[in-house]
Amino acid sequence: MEILSQHKVHGGGLGYYSHASEACVCDMRFSVFVPPQAADGPVPVVTWLSGLTCTEDNFTTKAGAYGVAAELGLMVVAPDTSPRGTDRDGNAVPDDDAYDLGLGAGFYLDATEAPWDQHFNMYSYIIRDLQAVLKDNFAGDWARQGIMGHSMGGHGALTIWLKNLETFTSASAVAPICAPMQCPWGDKALTAYLGANRAAWANHDATELMKNGGDGSSRAAILVDQGLGDNFLDGQLHPHLLEEACAAVGQKITVNRREGYDHSYFFIASVIDDHLRHHAAVLTENLGSEGNT
Amino acid sequence: MEILSQHKVHGGGLGYYSHASEACVCDMRFSVFVPPQAADGPVPVVTWLSGLTCTEDNFTTKAGAYGVAAELGLMVVAPDTSPRGTDRDGNAVPDDDAYDLGLGAGFYLDATEAPWDQHFNMYSYIIRDLQAVLKDNFAGDWARQGIMGHSMGGHGALTIWLKNLETFTSASAVAPICAPMQCPWGDKALTAYLGANRAAWANHDATELMKNGGDGSSRAAILVDQGLGDNFLDGQLHPHLLEEACAAVGQKITVNRREGYDHSYFFIASVIDDHLRHHAAVLTENLGSEGNT
Repeated sequence: MEILSQHKVHGGGLGYYSHASEACVCDMRFSVFVPPQAADGPVPVVTWLSGLTCTEDNFTTKAGAYGVAAELGLMVVAPDTSPRGTDRDGNAVPDDDAYDLGLGAGFYLDATEAPWDQHFNMYSYIIRDLQAVLKDNFAGDWARQGIMGHSMGGHGALTIWLKNLETFTSASAVAPICAPMQCPWGDKALTAYLGANRAAWANHDATELMKNGGDGSSRAAILVDQGLGDNFLDGQLHPHLLEEACAAVGQKITVNRREGYDHSYFFIASVIDDHLRHHAAVLTENLGSEGNT
Repeated sequence: MEILSQHKVHGGGLGYYSHASEACVCDMRFSVFVPPQAADGPVPVVTWLSGLTCTEDNFTTKAGAYGVAAELGLMVVAPDTSPRGTDRDGNAVPDDDAYDLGLGAGFYLDATEAPWDQHFNMYSYIIRDLQAVLKDNFAGDWARQGIMGHSMGGHGALTIWLKNLETFTSASAVAPICAPMQCPWGDKALTAYLGANRAAWANHDATELMKNGGDGSSRAAILVDQGLGDNFLDGQLHPHLLEEACAAVGQKITVNRREGYDHSYFFIASVIDDHLRHHAAVLTENLGSEGNT
């Protein structure tokens, strides 16, 4: 792991880092905020997954998350949203001219279709490579982890959580893509990355995973915030489909529909404190019942 | 005034705007956060002046200021740091290849030397044009205003405050350039903008203005935060010179020297709540003694 820069913020330590990813076959960047409480022992960890066009920098500089993270004693991790640059053989990671495919649009899945299949393996990156580099270098309490994200990253957080409940206890999302099989962003990306066989898509759709994942009553409640002034709400996000799927399987979910808020980081900044408190509450409760392992 | 974009944030309204500046002879941009309390009547106004290389966007997206501004009921204004673009005759605003002269480096003064003198009049812009467009379009309590800034903008806030006490009651700064006549950034900019006659420089140097501004005991206390991990502290910023000048004239000042913090927006984000509370306290106290005029 290479240190790119480090800064003190809100009494904690924030760093930008780079490391070689086996899953993406290129170097990947991420940021980590370590709260002051880490001086006294391992702290719970929450990973944020950003939306389309973002890098590891957008959340880190714009969300205003670290004041409350320092208060709560949460480590906060923010990875990039896709592979970038060149691999060890000097080959460029493929891209598409559109903002919603290729660079900045990894969709947190493992691609099976050319030209994406060699590098666009963000699912394995988040679960395997990022977890490994974090555990090797930071004093997290790895038994107490949460995952959250925005838009494409909300889709990533919800799907990765449902498939990795042993790693991530808590989940939340801001303006998530809730049913990518039923919206243009998802249709385009899943076709390109996974091919035309829609049966393969269901494994990357939070609503489908929820429907087919059995009884949800033992999982932590999900927190979702959605702005009602969000231009993408009607066409792309569909939180009602996720709510219906949750209701069918006994999964607790709170969807706060917020008057006037749009899809920007100004909305994320307005609700991030609530999301961090949600994760801290679930992860502390989890500590109470299961112990700090 | 043209509306560029508007967003809801922390329950208030944030907008980016453009307007024609007579002082800078070009269009200028700024952002304004209007807190929810403005629905009940005029609210106090604090203007933030950014540092070298910044636009109106840096503070707006990175400082994390609007949560506490919404709590305190403060309007927060963030203008650009220099003229930009082209004037009405299609002539480009002049620039210099260096980051610390020309675009993004207006130093909040009125230039007297070519090629800068036609457009680089940020002092008059802040005092005259920006105040006018704000008063025409926003419900501020214009008798209760404060000014603050970072680095070059801290220099701007302190000097503009000392010369316009009837407009700005409260002042604060994060890592300000306290004595531009005694540092390389100031020496370069003041030479370029004002010429080699150093006598003209003293009118734009907070330490010199403080020394020569008479008894300071009736002014509000100044709040300054300075990171001790700031690479520019020893060579450029010199808060001790401002402290000495304040002590000599009875000006109250608090300089918080913060272990480990650097010159970045991560430091600004870490202390901005304290600065907003400082302004709110001074402006509320002022209301108590002088009334809401």
